[in-house]
Amino acid sequence: MPRPAILAAALSLAVAQLSAAATQAANVILFVGDGMDDQQVTIARDYLKGARGELLLDSMPVRGAVQILTVEDSTAGKPVYVADSANTATSLATGQVTSRGRIATSAGDDRDLVTIVELAQGAGLRTGIVTTASVTDATPASFAAHISYRLCENPGSMVDITVSGVELGGCEQDLKASGGPGSISEQLATSGLDVLLGGGAKHFEPPVEGGEQSVARLAQVEGFSVVRSRENLLAAQPGERLLGLFSASTMPVRLQGEGGRSAEAPEPSLLNRVHPYLGSVTLPEPMRCEPNPDAAGLPSLKEMTDVALQQLSHDNDRGFFLMVESASIDKQSHERKPCGSIGELEQLEEAVASAMAFAESHPDTLILVTADHSQAAQLVPQRSMFEQYTIPVYTTGKMARIITPEGSLMGVNYATNDFGYEEHTGANVPLYANTAAAGRVKPFQRQPELFGIMREYLGL
Amino acid sequence: MPRPAILAAALSLAVAQLSAAATQAANVILFVGDGMDDQQVTIARDYLKGARGELLLDSMPVRGAVQILTVEDSTAGKPVYVADSANTATSLATGQVTSRGRIATSAGDDRDLVTIVELAQGAGLRTGIVTTASVTDATPASFAAHISYRLCENPGSMVDITVSGVELGGCEQDLKASGGPGSISEQLATSGLDVLLGGGAKHFEPPVEGGEQSVARLAQVEGFSVVRSRENLLAAQPGERLLGLFSASTMPVRLQGEGGRSAEAPEPSLLNRVHPYLGSVTLPEPMRCEPNPDAAGLPSLKEMTDVALQQLSHDNDRGFFLMVESASIDKQSHERKPCGSIGELEQLEEAVASAMAFAESHPDTLILVTADHSQAAQLVPQRSMFEQYTIPVYTTGKMARIITPEGSLMGVNYATNDFGYEEHTGANVPLYANTAAAGRVKPFQRQPELFGIMREYLGL
Repeated sequence: MPRPAILAAALSLAVAQLSAAATQAANVILFVGDGMDDQQVTIARDYLKGARGELLLDSMPVRGAVQILTVEDSTAGKPVYVADSANTATSLATGQVTSRGRIATSAGDDRDLVTIVELAQGAGLRTGIVTTASVTDATPASFAAHISYRLCENPGSMVDITVSGVELGGCEQDLKASGGPGSISEQLATSGLDVLLGGGAKHFEPPVEGGEQSVARLAQVEGFSVVRSRENLLAAQPGERLLGLFSASTMPVRLQGEGGRSAEAPEPSLLNRVHPYLGSVTLPEPMRCEPNPDAAGLPSLKEMTDVALQQLSHDNDRGFFLMVESASIDKQSHERKPCGSIGELEQLEEAVASAMAFAESHPDTLILVTADHSQAAQLVPQRSMFEQYTIPVYTTGKMARIITPEGSLMGVNYATNDFGYEEHTGANVPLYANTAAAGRVKPFQRQPELFGIMREYLGL
Repeated sequence: MPRPAILAAALSLAVAQLSAAATQAANVILFVGDGMDDQQVTIARDYLKGARGELLLDSMPVRGAVQILTVEDSTAGKPVYVADSANTATSLATGQVTSRGRIATSAGDDRDLVTIVELAQGAGLRTGIVTTASVTDATPASFAAHISYRLCENPGSMVDITVSGVELGGCEQDLKASGGPGSISEQLATSGLDVLLGGGAKHFEPPVEGGEQSVARLAQVEGFSVVRSRENLLAAQPGERLLGLFSASTMPVRLQGEGGRSAEAPEPSLLNRVHPYLGSVTLPEPMRCEPNPDAAGLPSLKEMTDVALQQLSHDNDRGFFLMVESASIDKQSHERKPCGSIGELEQLEEAVASAMAFAESHPDTLILVTADHSQAAQLVPQRSMFEQYTIPVYTTGKMARIITPEGSLMGVNYATNDFGYEEHTGANVPLYANTAAAGRVKPFQRQPELFGIMREYLGL
């Protein structure tokens, strides 16, 4: 090769290496507001900022909508129009559509699906997961574990899982004894994650399958510093790999209804029970939201996110992937607790603010904020639109009438079923992003496409 | 003035005139999908295109979200978190927030609010309104009439309006005898609109207040050609001002449930009525959607839109404003008829396709597609997510299980009340737009801001 050609080739190689380095230094922060659909967002906006106000999410420069996909549990499964957090997190983490309840495994034939955390680790990037749920819950688990059923969260919950006396299934084929990877907590303990923060301490207490040490001990052996208090979290040293377990299971939420109240059933008068055109109805008493004392002393989602960003970015020229979940927008909606959902959406906002500030000083940071699926709560008239009619009109479900800080009453209805937990719903969900997403995020995409956007941004 | 300065001034004037001319030639087409929230859009997408499919709306290049605003009926009214089609259309038409039930009049002090149709007419632009509702219904009325209460649709419905034996109010102060503008149909007949197409013929039959001729006759005297059939509509001559009245009230919708079925209440067994943990439940039988025979022979929303575009653009160098409403997405949802809503969203899609094609050949055309407020329908699991539990789990409202063309079952739940009509809900709604909206539409805006965007685009 003549000398100029060699020089040109060397230059070309150097340029390629430079752009590779640039790609490697990119960061992705994915926020998942569990169940955070447009009803939840509006309920939170009206309460936290007022009807004319604006959330941080609203002010983000890029917005799109995301169609949720799931299928029946067979290899050519038919579409199912309402999803759960397991299959949706799998879509985000792996780009694949799977059936409800599955954690990064395929519908029907139960193959392991490679996650963005694994791809990132393979390329030398740091990885982190932060959640207000148990770290073993469906959303976080789908990014760093593979198992056929979401409830197989620890070595003691792998076969014959029974809830309220009902046998719900198990993960026999995922037992180590069956040649599988073991339970979710065991997989997380050996996951290679740099940061894993949330609730779920109880899933790290049982002994590992076929052994005597606890899963928490296994995590320590694998190099995690296990922290269990806000103080220890905030005192974390740069470079430490952190497993934070701040509550036994889901972390207590920030806000609750006055005196712990949930949505309640309207109370029809005796006469109205005789005939729907007669009598009257007493709607639930208006209530305020108040701080939940159980959350005192726990780290906020923002604090956990701040520590994660510090650990992941410290002395790191290769970039990172971080997933942050505000889990209880959904969980509180299942339990018909609108104040709980509002507070957790506020927590998400604060954590997103931290990420946006981080991206100011680290411009190669893609921030995506989305929901995994929509939820049951509906913002409804606090008194029926038809109250001029002389017959009592009221929801057959449960409703709350919340006194907002601007002094109006906001009705929230939960009426998808008569069970202890409301259903999910199937509407497409919002997507918010920072300017790094411009030209990458479309006005409309299917949920698995978000995986591709993140993967491409990280050059994986 | 020295000669070069004169020349410069003349040039500057010419440029100003040119840009004024350019502004005047701009067109705005505003589509309102009444009640078309993200639940309705997803239900329609899943049915019409499949879960992995894409609506025309999804493919539009600009997308945002819109916060709905309304207030109590006083001059400094407190926020109300759920709106109706009257106050929301007033927001779109006038940029002002008002109370529910009001047609382009202010909350509390009942001032007339100037509409974009009036501004456009004042600037020499043509104007049109197309709807599948009565042309006197709240959404169309708010663009070209001013009245204190939406039900004052004709001269015979101005005082003591009674529905199902209930006295709902009236518009005494709007009577001509009180110095007011008269009923909605009378105002529309003298509105100066170039095109007004939809249902509502019955509101043009009564004699005008204090006269003997019908409102329809008044419209003719005012220069409208009154057309009452699809054939006459399609035969309209360029340049004619058209009042099209194709049905007595709301135009019959395109699709209905098999045999006219609506959503239905699940039927618990006798034992389940005794105790919720016992017995079983029979969910509504799955059903298909089928054509509604009552819609046969009527013009489609697309056909009405096509004629409107032809009439408004023919030999017009000043531009136009056109509002097109698909009204029964909302009306069918009130009545718990998911197939009806799906068909009307399909009608909207076809009409938007016509507008997009029009904008191809008329690039100075801004197309906005939005909803006025959200609705009660929810896409829910067709069988409960909790059916593994051995107790019957079902909605306390009414549900449909629709067989989709791709062969799955889609659940739709209606459970905001026990009345004959479901409530509206308060979630922010989607906004779709063509490229002319780039840089004008934000990721998030309040509904009255859309008025400002349209006004600015038209240079009004």
